[in-house]
Amino acid sequence: MKKIGYIGLGRMGEAMARNLLRGGFELVVWNRTTSKAKRLLDEGAVWAESPALLAAQVELVCINVTDTPDVEAVLFGPDGVSARQGSSLLVVVDHSTISPEATREFAERLAKSGIEFLDAPVTGGDIGARDGTLSIMVGGDAGVFEHCRHVFEAVGKCITYVGASGTGQLCKACNQIMGALNLLGVCEAMALARKGGLSLDKMLTVTGAGAAGSWALENLGRQIADGDMQPGFMIDLIRKDLAIVQKEAVGLNLPLLGVPMVERLFQAASDMGHGHCGTQALSRVVEATGKFRFSEDADQREA
Amino acid sequence: MKKIGYIGLGRMGEAMARNLLRGGFELVVWNRTTSKAKRLLDEGAVWAESPALLAAQVELVCINVTDTPDVEAVLFGPDGVSARQGSSLLVVVDHSTISPEATREFAERLAKSGIEFLDAPVTGGDIGARDGTLSIMVGGDAGVFEHCRHVFEAVGKCITYVGASGTGQLCKACNQIMGALNLLGVCEAMALARKGGLSLDKMLTVTGAGAAGSWALENLGRQIADGDMQPGFMIDLIRKDLAIVQKEAVGLNLPLLGVPMVERLFQAASDMGHGHCGTQALSRVVEATGKFRFSEDADQREA
Repeated sequence: MKKIGYIGLGRMGEAMARNLLRGGFELVVWNRTTSKAKRLLDEGAVWAESPALLAAQVELVCINVTDTPDVEAVLFGPDGVSARQGSSLLVVVDHSTISPEATREFAERLAKSGIEFLDAPVTGGDIGARDGTLSIMVGGDAGVFEHCRHVFEAVGKCITYVGASGTGQLCKACNQIMGALNLLGVCEAMALARKGGLSLDKMLTVTGAGAAGSWALENLGRQIADGDMQPGFMIDLIRKDLAIVQKEAVGLNLPLLGVPMVERLFQAASDMGHGHCGTQALSRVVEATGKFRFSEDADQREA
Repeated sequence: MKKIGYIGLGRMGEAMARNLLRGGFELVVWNRTTSKAKRLLDEGAVWAESPALLAAQVELVCINVTDTPDVEAVLFGPDGVSARQGSSLLVVVDHSTISPEATREFAERLAKSGIEFLDAPVTGGDIGARDGTLSIMVGGDAGVFEHCRHVFEAVGKCITYVGASGTGQLCKACNQIMGALNLLGVCEAMALARKGGLSLDKMLTVTGAGAAGSWALENLGRQIADGDMQPGFMIDLIRKDLAIVQKEAVGLNLPLLGVPMVERLFQAASDMGHGHCGTQALSRVVEATGKFRFSEDADQREA
């Protein structure tokens, strides 16, 4: 498989598609917003007029879109992948973060047209996508995974087959739970440090070296201290992911407490206008709570 | 200062006192439960009959007890440190994790008898105490800190002066917030993985390498997967620490959400009989919630 179709050229998709080009693959691309394909076309990718026309030309299609309905539209819509002509297409690899349950259903529907489906969500952010150092967690048929391994190796570093269809997405759901709650801890700790007049720099350094250490503390904690709310990963996207987590947990009869709470706080961040900021803007909500509720006392103490 | 007094020979105190002995310091010790001093006395430490009698023999006293009232009793009780005879005592170093507000008050009271007080809580657990690799966050007078640095270097590795009296304890409070919420994320993620039939081993490996990574995931996640509830750090101690955090946050007019929730869950773990287990026994509460609430469905799915 030296020719690959790529659908979804957002921040992550474009960077990953570029690494496929650099890895020597021929690329056929499609994106809902045509203009986002421009740079890749300049670099040698070929445009297809629809997912169906793209899928007719390749054995493997990668998808990298936002949410479950987007994947469904690209696969099963009127000009979708499954409406392709011919029978060259063998595998669809979905790098999006979507519902594990819907993933299993999509896999079954595609199997009926002889197409294998791997769920292969990634972690490592825009930097990982650019540098080809993503972690990829793959669910689906183990043999198909081995068949596609060389494609994953062009875009990621830690590539792990985790089990049957949907388990890649389930693993990503677990990942997002921890990422979100680690960040909440960082935000509450930093709010306490700020209110108590403790140097944020010193707090980050001391605690990062010990049992409180995390990726979130090391990376997002630093950005919060610097007031840098630029997205690596957007508030509105973690909200989407946590909604997926919640739906899956409810479906499995697992009531969670931390997830719905932090989901609600991310929603508050969106309501405050931070939906397109990085997830570290959760700190704005935690700090705002402190100010709104006892504003006079707080102002006095901070003065 | 080659002769040091040590009060409080629990799991942490004994290991840290031993490193002082090995570092060439002479040691006078006192502990509420006499028998716990036995090993150190065999290794060369000298027993004192009370904190006051101990304090009369040294320039520096280290304290390593459980909670705020314990520190207060050792300092200001009838036979407490401040009731010492003579005036050789210059500094008290408190390695316990206690209230930042009470710390400031203790420092003021000791100053009246000419004694300096450093708050110097530690992180790194029983292993760090044994190996002398603790992180120590020190609040109090900067000159006094420099004067005592060689003592800290005998028991810790990352030694940081963080600011005025009480800020060491505030920093430890921040540390405990993150440690607790990181662990909650690990527990909820692992409960979801278990319920959904995802391999815990694979989940821990993939997520640990990325943006969800944390000390808690790497260490406590592994113990949860193995069903190992042995304490590094006990549930009843993190409860005590989170109560300190909450009191400090309320005092600073900072309403938090994550902390009281996770504090309540640790209380549930105690109620279930896990108070003397390691903090990773929080997983028992998260998993129990899933079973109690929809027990029949859950059993069916798990069968």
